[in-house]
Amino acid sequence: MMKLTQTVQKGGCAAKVAAAELRKILQNVSFPPSHPQLMIDGSLFDDAAVYKITSDLAMVQTLDFFTPIVDSPYLFGQIAAANALSDVYAMGGTPTTAMAILAFPLISLPQEVIVQVLQGASDKIKEAKACFVGGHSIDDDTLKFGLSVTGFVHPEKIWSNQGAKEGDILLLTKALGTGTITASLKRQETTEQDIHEALQSMATLNNVKDFLNTTQIQAIHAATDITGFGLAGHGMQMAKASNVSFEIETQKLPLLPRSLEFIEKSFLTKAHRTNREYTEQDVDFSALSKSLQSLAVDPQTSGGLLLSVSADQAESIGQSLKKAFPQTQMIGSVKKSKEKKIYFHG
Amino acid sequence: MMKLTQTVQKGGCAAKVAAAELRKILQNVSFPPSHPQLMIDGSLFDDAAVYKITSDLAMVQTLDFFTPIVDSPYLFGQIAAANALSDVYAMGGTPTTAMAILAFPLISLPQEVIVQVLQGASDKIKEAKACFVGGHSIDDDTLKFGLSVTGFVHPEKIWSNQGAKEGDILLLTKALGTGTITASLKRQETTEQDIHEALQSMATLNNVKDFLNTTQIQAIHAATDITGFGLAGHGMQMAKASNVSFEIETQKLPLLPRSLEFIEKSFLTKAHRTNREYTEQDVDFSALSKSLQSLAVDPQTSGGLLLSVSADQAESIGQSLKKAFPQTQMIGSVKKSKEKKIYFHG
Repeated sequence: MMKLTQTVQKGGCAAKVAAAELRKILQNVSFPPSHPQLMIDGSLFDDAAVYKITSDLAMVQTLDFFTPIVDSPYLFGQIAAANALSDVYAMGGTPTTAMAILAFPLISLPQEVIVQVLQGASDKIKEAKACFVGGHSIDDDTLKFGLSVTGFVHPEKIWSNQGAKEGDILLLTKALGTGTITASLKRQETTEQDIHEALQSMATLNNVKDFLNTTQIQAIHAATDITGFGLAGHGMQMAKASNVSFEIETQKLPLLPRSLEFIEKSFLTKAHRTNREYTEQDVDFSALSKSLQSLAVDPQTSGGLLLSVSADQAESIGQSLKKAFPQTQMIGSVKKSKEKKIYFHG
Repeated sequence: MMKLTQTVQKGGCAAKVAAAELRKILQNVSFPPSHPQLMIDGSLFDDAAVYKITSDLAMVQTLDFFTPIVDSPYLFGQIAAANALSDVYAMGGTPTTAMAILAFPLISLPQEVIVQVLQGASDKIKEAKACFVGGHSIDDDTLKFGLSVTGFVHPEKIWSNQGAKEGDILLLTKALGTGTITASLKRQETTEQDIHEALQSMATLNNVKDFLNTTQIQAIHAATDITGFGLAGHGMQMAKASNVSFEIETQKLPLLPRSLEFIEKSFLTKAHRTNREYTEQDVDFSALSKSLQSLAVDPQTSGGLLLSVSADQAESIGQSLKKAFPQTQMIGSVKKSKEKKIYFHG
C-alpha cells in the first residue's frame, strides 16, 4: 500500500514556516491599522482571529493545513481536521462551519486517497457538531490538506493567550512527542501500529469545554494550543502576551510512548532547530538534558491545550479532563514576569 | 527579474481540479445530513457557504487559492485577494475578515516576493474594508496564495445561483479571456505591459452592490462569479440551480483585448478541455466558431459577476455598473427550462 508520508519531503506542522523567518517577512508589509471590531488578531501570536459582531456574539476564524504526517489517508484527514478545529477550541469558541483546503497530485495519488482524507475530516467535523460546507482543491505536486474553520464565542468569554495570572496552575491536556514520532514514521523506523497512542492523541478533538462545568470554565484564564512551535514556543508566546513567567516541572510533562527514545536516536525535524532558535533568548533550558530540551521544542501536530487556571480549581479541572484526555497533567505554575519567560526545572 | 509564472506548471483557476473529477470523488464520501442553520452549502455549486446566525444575520464563508498567473508578486497578491473576496460579493455579502493561505519555496524564492504578495493582498483587503487577520504558511515546492474570507449578509437578501427567473436579463460585469491571456503570459508570448487591461480587470473587486441603489439591488434575482469553470460552466450551474435555460447573444460578450487572437493561436489550458467536457451535455455551442466555443469555456481568474436581473431594471443596473465596471454588458436572457441549459446564439 502507498505510504502517504513517503510522498512528501516535510510533514505536518514541521513544514510550517519558522516563526522568526515569518516575522521578518511580516515586518516589511505595511498593514492598515487594526479595526475596532477586531478583538484578537495574529499580532500577539494567538491561534485565531476574533471579530465582535454584537455585544454577545463574536466570530472566531482560523485555518490550518499541512502535508501528511501519517500513512493512512483516513487518519490523516481526522488529524488535519482535529488540528484545524483546535484553534477555535483554544479561543474558548465552538466551531460552526469548516471548509476544506486540498492540494493533491491527480496523477500520482489514487482518488481513493482523497475520498478517505475527506471522510476522515467529515467524521471529525461531525464529531465536533460543526458543518463541512465545501472547500477548494487544486492539482499540486504533493498532498496537502487542512481546514478553514469559523466558529462563535461570547465576547466576554474568549480565551486568549493574554490572561495568564501570577499564581495560576498550568495544565497540559495531551502528551508531547508527535514531532519526533512522526519523523520516525517518515523514516520508516516505526509503524502506525507501533505509535497508536500518538495517532489517537493527534486525532482527538480539543473540545475541553464540553467536559467542564461553568465554575471550572470561569477558572480558565488563558489558553493556547500546542502546535508547530512546541511547548516552549507556544508557552513562551503565552507568557509574553500575559506579561508573566512560567515555571515548568519537567518531570511532570506527559510524554508519548517512545518519544524520548526517538529523540535520543536524533529523529528530528527542521522545526526542532528553528523552534530552539525561536525560544533561545526567552526560555531557560539549562536544567534539562539534551533530549528533554528537544522534547520541549518538539513541534506538535494537533497537540493539546495549555491552560492557565486558578490554583483553587486546578485539581478539579484536571480530574474532569482526565476522563476525555487521560494524559492531562498539571505541569507548572505562573510567576511574576522575570528575566526569562519560561524556566524548565529538572 | 524572476518571473513568477515560470516557477509553476499550472497557474490560477486553471489549476483547479476539474468539476467532473471532483464530483466523482465527493460522491464516494459519506457526509452527514445538512444542518438546519446551513442556508447554502456547496451542493448546488454555489460560491460559498451561508450559515444563519439570527433572523437578520447570516455568515458567509469561502476560500480560494492558486499558483501565480502573473509575474509581478504585488499584482499576484491583489488578484488572488480580489478573487477570494469575490465569492462573498457573489452571495450579496460584505467581506469582514480574511486570512492568508500561503505556500512558498523558502529556498528558491526571495522573501521580498512574499512581502509583495502580502502587500498586494493587504491593500486589496483594505479597499474591500475588510480586516486581514492572519493566516497559515507552509514551506512548499511552488508558490500558492489565496484567502479564506468570512463575511456577513442578511438572510433574506442572499444572492444565490438559484433565483434566476424566466424573463430576466443576464448581465456580465467583466470581460472574458483571462485564461488564454494568462496562458500566453506563461508561454512568454506576451508581457504584463501588453495585457494591462486583463491584469486590471482581475485585480478589480466585485463589489457591485456598492454602486447600486436599493431598488436596483432588489432587482437582482441570482448571481455567481465567473471563475475556473468559465462562463459556460458557471452559467450552466446557475441555470440548473434555478431550473431555467439561458440564451446568450455571443456577439454581446465583452472580450478582453487579444483574447480571441490568443485563443486562435491555441494558447489554451487543461481547463479549456475539461470545462468543455463538463458543459458538453447541457450547453448548445453549435452556433459558435471553434474560437468562440473556447472563449465560452475559458477559465477565468477573478472574473466578473453574472447577474440575473428583472428586465425592467436591467438597463438602469447596467448603466450604474458601467462606472466602476466599464466592460459590463447585457449578454442574454432567461427562458423557461428547455433541453439545454444554455444556448449560445451566433
